[in-house]
Amino acid sequence: MKYKAEIDIMPLKEILDPQGKAVKLGLKNLGLPEILDARIGKHITLEIEAENKGAAEEKVAFACKKLLANLIMEDFKYKVTEA
Amino acid sequence: MKYKAEIDIMPLKEILDPQGKAVKLGLKNLGLPEILDARIGKHITLEIEAENKGAAEEKVAFACKKLLANLIMEDFKYKVTEA
Repeated sequence: MKYKAEIDIMPLKEILDPQGKAVKLGLKNLGLPEILDARIGKHITLEIEAENKGAAEEKVAFACKKLLANLIMEDFKYKVTEA
Repeated sequence: MKYKAEIDIMPLKEILDPQGKAVKLGLKNLGLPEILDARIGKHITLEIEAENKGAAEEKVAFACKKLLANLIMEDFKYKVTEA
């Protein structure tokens, strides 16, 4: 069966996010000083062939740990749904 | 009141995503040929000060259109919740 995974990979709270700071400043200059904070990470969608949802989730967790996220600086969360 | 926005910005379906292709190949080489497709975009979280949820959503849509997303190559979706 086919599954779809939606993965968010974000910099850890303790880690500075210069790209987010730049976006916050840019939004302020655009007339949006109400944006108090901005943080920028990656959003990854995967299409997976797997026997069941559990197997698909296992593959996604493996992919995140081994390739997609740098666990020293980032954490990840994911949601798997039937495609 | 404070609101939190979760924004996903993804390359349009019609647009090639070389980064996604590279990730797909990398996962295959890691022993995950079951990943049929990968697409990579940005995930942005904003913290917003606004009077109500509608106003917060308006600000997020404005920020996406004016700064965060390149509408020629990307589309965006967002979800606003109370922080």
